[in-house]
Amino acid sequence: MHTIPAATLEAALAWRYATKAFDAERRIPDDLWAALERTLVATPSSWGLQPWRFVVVTDPALKQQLRPLSWNQPQVTDCSHLVVFAARSAITEQDLDRLIGATAAARGLRPEALATYRQMMHADLIAGPRAAIAHEWAIRQCYIALGQFMLACALLGVDACPMEGIDPPAYDRVLGLEGSGYRTAVACAAGYRAASDKYAGLPKVRYPRSEVVIRR
Amino acid sequence: MHTIPAATLEAALAWRYATKAFDAERRIPDDLWAALERTLVATPSSWGLQPWRFVVVTDPALKQQLRPLSWNQPQVTDCSHLVVFAARSAITEQDLDRLIGATAAARGLRPEALATYRQMMHADLIAGPRAAIAHEWAIRQCYIALGQFMLACALLGVDACPMEGIDPPAYDRVLGLEGSGYRTAVACAAGYRAASDKYAGLPKVRYPRSEVVIRR
Repeated sequence: MHTIPAATLEAALAWRYATKAFDAERRIPDDLWAALERTLVATPSSWGLQPWRFVVVTDPALKQQLRPLSWNQPQVTDCSHLVVFAARSAITEQDLDRLIGATAAARGLRPEALATYRQMMHADLIAGPRAAIAHEWAIRQCYIALGQFMLACALLGVDACPMEGIDPPAYDRVLGLEGSGYRTAVACAAGYRAASDKYAGLPKVRYPRSEVVIRR
Repeated sequence: MHTIPAATLEAALAWRYATKAFDAERRIPDDLWAALERTLVATPSSWGLQPWRFVVVTDPALKQQLRPLSWNQPQVTDCSHLVVFAARSAITEQDLDRLIGATAAARGLRPEALATYRQMMHADLIAGPRAAIAHEWAIRQCYIALGQFMLACALLGVDACPMEGIDPPAYDRVLGLEGSGYRTAVACAAGYRAASDKYAGLPKVRYPRSEVVIRR
């Protein structure tokens, strides 16, 4: 059984917050982290194209290098695992072939049986108007992964802090992403809140349902 | 207690898929839908700015109008609830004032006590280089909501189908969003899979962890 009570889901969302101070001594246990990595891998994406890499940084020296590229935010060095979401810089024929190949293999088909699927993706992201925004489209997919990851963390009792305040080109250089076809989009620190984090106790600020949900 | 076993989370992710055929007779119960709306409202966003509206469409006539604007996909009419994620078209002084006001009220502060916070948001999204991509930035935040929503659905046993294949300007017209300061970004149909949906049984296609996760 995979369902949970709605109250559990809502309690997890109430518990989570953008953690500003992590307990630098606490590491996410390996088995729990492996599960979180699997949730990243399982993230849904448009067309199923998975236009991302998830760079998981745990090396203290590397975190130290990234911190000044992140407004010197201590989350970068004090968290247990820093995830950098890198988005595909363009969608190419090779991306389509890769997905078609994987799909054919998973489903016991010949790739030719998926020609229409390939053609539709091609018309959208290579030959179509969205080719011009393919990198931006890939960034959006990374944000699906970010949203799912933050909720997954909360449900597993792991604290997280999403971070847009980073220097993506500098991250690319430090992480060796230059020339890889993937570029840093956003990051998320994960670990455990420090007892001293005064942000943990602040009331959450969300606009009322009546202001953000329009029922039609 | 808000945590769940990692196995439950992974089972939910394995169970979910982009549902192509919904059971048009089944509606999400009101209390369950209310919980899902609360998860939308609780979505984290950069700076906490919540630059979104969630348009929830259940009216059959309106769904019928939207279907031809969605490559005629039957999910639009057959789902129980169609959520349209609309992103703020720009970030203005009023957006900052609204958030500062809500934050001050929630935390028992005078708005002036939050001047630095306001100034940082201003420097980023109004006076800074990201002002030029503020709408795109707002779309990215909508994708956080989309990612969280899809996982929340799966955990509550609700099927979902994310949909980029829609005509956003036409959606804006039909939904009355024109001139609202919010524009359609993406949609997600929610409800219950039809027993006949052959996609439900297909093996999921995800690249192996070793190809998408880079450990550093």
